[in-house]
Amino acid sequence: MAKNKVSYAPSVRRLPSYLHIIRQAQRAGDYYISGTIIAQELNLEPIQVRKDLAITGIIGKPKKGYPVEALVAAIEHYLGWDEVHEAVLVGAGNLGSALLGYQEFQLHGLHFVAAFDTDPEKIGQHVHGVPILSMDTIEQGIKSLGAEIAVLAVPSPRAQSTAETLVRAGIGSIWNFTNTKLKVPDEIVVQREDLSSGYALLSVMMQNRKGRVV
Amino acid sequence: MAKNKVSYAPSVRRLPSYLHIIRQAQRAGDYYISGTIIAQELNLEPIQVRKDLAITGIIGKPKKGYPVEALVAAIEHYLGWDEVHEAVLVGAGNLGSALLGYQEFQLHGLHFVAAFDTDPEKIGQHVHGVPILSMDTIEQGIKSLGAEIAVLAVPSPRAQSTAETLVRAGIGSIWNFTNTKLKVPDEIVVQREDLSSGYALLSVMMQNRKGRVV
Repeated sequence: MAKNKVSYAPSVRRLPSYLHIIRQAQRAGDYYISGTIIAQELNLEPIQVRKDLAITGIIGKPKKGYPVEALVAAIEHYLGWDEVHEAVLVGAGNLGSALLGYQEFQLHGLHFVAAFDTDPEKIGQHVHGVPILSMDTIEQGIKSLGAEIAVLAVPSPRAQSTAETLVRAGIGSIWNFTNTKLKVPDEIVVQREDLSSGYALLSVMMQNRKGRVV
Repeated sequence: MAKNKVSYAPSVRRLPSYLHIIRQAQRAGDYYISGTIIAQELNLEPIQVRKDLAITGIIGKPKKGYPVEALVAAIEHYLGWDEVHEAVLVGAGNLGSALLGYQEFQLHGLHFVAAFDTDPEKIGQHVHGVPILSMDTIEQGIKSLGAEIAVLAVPSPRAQSTAETLVRAGIGSIWNFTNTKLKVPDEIVVQREDLSSGYALLSVMMQNRKGRVV
């Protein structure tokens, strides 16, 4: 069994959506938000919302709901999003460039300090304010930048060899956007983002609508 | 409760990874694959693998495992990936362009017939072989193309109004890559892809490694 398993993965996956709703309430000047309202906004059962939020250690008050400020702080602290995490992007193609520009990441403490690519036309340029450095300098570059996370968006055939370089350079966490299952030492945290997973869910909903029962 | 809910969402999310492993076995010429091997490859418990695959209606044989051909066919049929689904991309920025080039989608029957964008420099061009059409023509364009799925990758402030146009044009399914929760009629299937969800999982694994118990 992988030690890098998250016990409440589906709940954890929903936390950013909760954060989004709760921050809206915060901006609207609300002091409390009810679990029922959150559930309605996200099309979830209220009991599910209460269970999910309980993993962050916060419990709503009867009739009043959750204290907005404390709930935002509890979710952010649970996720470690109340601290800055420095990251490098590896592979500044279309997907990589889109990730550099994804503004929500900044709200979550994810801060890109550099990107690495092999394309001489890109090296030396900036994308969304982040400098593109040569892939040839990646090992030394990561060591000197001291980044914690590598976001891997290279072509899949290069994923494994690049991951090995990242590990040698001292990266502790890899967010893997390739469709390669990386073989890295156990102490490295790897989260693979598989766009096909979301498409599978969409597909099953489409099948259901056609009258198939799932 | 939303009717467009998938009962076994975490299992459905894992099906593409199973498909990937099983197709590798198929290419290697294997007739059977054991649930234990699949579990090892994906860092899952064997019991989880058996439960997940059971939703597609296929059960492994003791000692032998799963018949590879039949298992591929069962998963693809369950997901509707044994048929072609025509799609349009709406918003051909970095993320949208990356999605057009994501080769795995073609394996899954997702076929982009056109993309729509507002940028005059892009209109008339092709990206990964897909023609970019003017956003001004989207309603008529979708009607005449008869696409089933819209992949929404416009800037978030334009997401809701664009979704309304898509619905008017007769789109039945929206794969939403914006961070806007769309308000559309109940009969429209919507799957929102939230990159922050994956980052939340990565974050919790990083917190766990620091010695916090989750």
